[in-house]
Amino acid sequence: MNDSAVAFQSLLTSVAHDIEKLLGRLLAAPPVAGERARPERLLDAMRYASLNGGKRFRPFLVSATAALFDVPKDQALLVGAGLECVHCYSLVHDDLPAMDNDDLRRGKPTAHKAFDEASAILAGDGLLTFAFDILARPETHPDPAVRAELVLALARGAGLGGMVGGQMLDLAAEGRFGDGKPQKLDEKAVSTLQAMKTGALLRFACNAGGILGQAGKHEREALDRYGTIVGQAFQIADDLLDIEGDSATVGKATGKDAAAGKATIAAILGVTRAKERLTTLVAEAEGALALFGAAGGVLKQAAWFVANRSA
Amino acid sequence: MNDSAVAFQSLLTSVAHDIEKLLGRLLAAPPVAGERARPERLLDAMRYASLNGGKRFRPFLVSATAALFDVPKDQALLVGAGLECVHCYSLVHDDLPAMDNDDLRRGKPTAHKAFDEASAILAGDGLLTFAFDILARPETHPDPAVRAELVLALARGAGLGGMVGGQMLDLAAEGRFGDGKPQKLDEKAVSTLQAMKTGALLRFACNAGGILGQAGKHEREALDRYGTIVGQAFQIADDLLDIEGDSATVGKATGKDAAAGKATIAAILGVTRAKERLTTLVAEAEGALALFGAAGGVLKQAAWFVANRSA
Repeated sequence: MNDSAVAFQSLLTSVAHDIEKLLGRLLAAPPVAGERARPERLLDAMRYASLNGGKRFRPFLVSATAALFDVPKDQALLVGAGLECVHCYSLVHDDLPAMDNDDLRRGKPTAHKAFDEASAILAGDGLLTFAFDILARPETHPDPAVRAELVLALARGAGLGGMVGGQMLDLAAEGRFGDGKPQKLDEKAVSTLQAMKTGALLRFACNAGGILGQAGKHEREALDRYGTIVGQAFQIADDLLDIEGDSATVGKATGKDAAAGKATIAAILGVTRAKERLTTLVAEAEGALALFGAAGGVLKQAAWFVANRSA
Repeated sequence: MNDSAVAFQSLLTSVAHDIEKLLGRLLAAPPVAGERARPERLLDAMRYASLNGGKRFRPFLVSATAALFDVPKDQALLVGAGLECVHCYSLVHDDLPAMDNDDLRRGKPTAHKAFDEASAILAGDGLLTFAFDILARPETHPDPAVRAELVLALARGAGLGGMVGGQMLDLAAEGRFGDGKPQKLDEKAVSTLQAMKTGALLRFACNAGGILGQAGKHEREALDRYGTIVGQAFQIADDLLDIEGDSATVGKATGKDAAAGKATIAAILGVTRAKERLTTLVAEAEGALALFGAAGGVLKQAAWFVANRSA
């Protein structure tokens, strides 16, 4: 591995560790100012859903983009923790019987299996709300304009025009609201769905570093471009894992998209062209980072990692 | 009616009208900056759940407390609209089969009946997220410190130490997680539950005026006290309506608390003492407003209205 690859792996590991610790501390039992009590079962369910030892790739992107502007490490971690709360809530709600009806997540019972449906719904609601609590706290950034901008950007990325909207498009694509048959989406429609469902939070993660760092216009545009590309690569790699991956390595059932007749970019392009697309996207991600020179090395590695991951 | 009573009724009606119009405009079809698309079914479900002609009492409290500090009307309405999104999302999720399993809300099918469970879950998630979107927008207040403070206060009131936590305590009190028997809560435990489940948002509504108006310490403390008292009165009046109210007037089934063996303040105190308590609370609310002199007249009327409402 070259130096950037080492720096990337090291930052990825250390952010995952720090986020686990930070979320554990933020979701401790004693109530904070403005809270009356933290009911034990709710807190347990929120901790179960968020303290799960994931890769924490979204918080990594926040920390790596924030590092370009010498943002203090703790500020980036707080934003990463808030973002991870949104990601984890979305998994809890997506797994519900009325949604994707999944019993397992990373080899563990899903929240509604480990607790019950009502607790899972509330734990999701609590995590989503907690994300904005974290972002708005003075310790997240001394300048309230930065905090308000983070809140607005996350709300846009996570809401009806972003992640929640993408989940709705995904359910519709499965034929949930019509005749029960999967919709035949074209590449453009699949791109929109995926940009919303998974892309929007990854894009926010990359923009967050620029917001925290009060970066200039050109730097913000570069990060937004990079974040959009990483979101696309992330999803195509996910499609390919579902087609080619080994379920033991991937950590979840594979072949699900094809079985469900689901339109994905990889299915539309075919495996060979999908892999070429990934190569192109990695090159484009590198191009978007040109502005940052050598400092962009870790983020280049991250783009390569996203495109070539095996799990 | 005296002048304050007239001013109260007039403001209540006008805020309800303005909130309906504002939410309709905010939840229009075209996506805004940072959004990719607003999926039609999701937007329809969010509009169904929020454009319902309710009394909009929480937004009224925001507008009435903001008026004490000459806050521009549109700012208070935006905060009221955000708060109402939280209130409406909570009703949608509470009505779900896994929660209270209600088919009707204000005489109309609940969201999961009018749409489906998945759409209702997502509409709730979308409305909660949208609340923070609205609060963080520059047009809500020119000073980002005010916006960040509003976001933090709403997140604390709505989250695990507030409304969501209260809903969890309420489900636990019904015996949902144990042996199926209702818990025998004492007055203190019921007070905590209700302060969280319904009190926290009403309290935020009253504090919001002081935040928007960048009010001083004493004024903020007075509003917080008033908001806490109004929350208590609101809940006892609700308990009494369930005991004594006529379901046609109240607009929902009555006698539900007793049938479910639910501990309420009114059940613990008995009807006579509960009514005395309401009288005391109205007097205390008036006392908390002394600081504001004649300007507090509308809020005094509001406390009386909460305690004596018939629906």
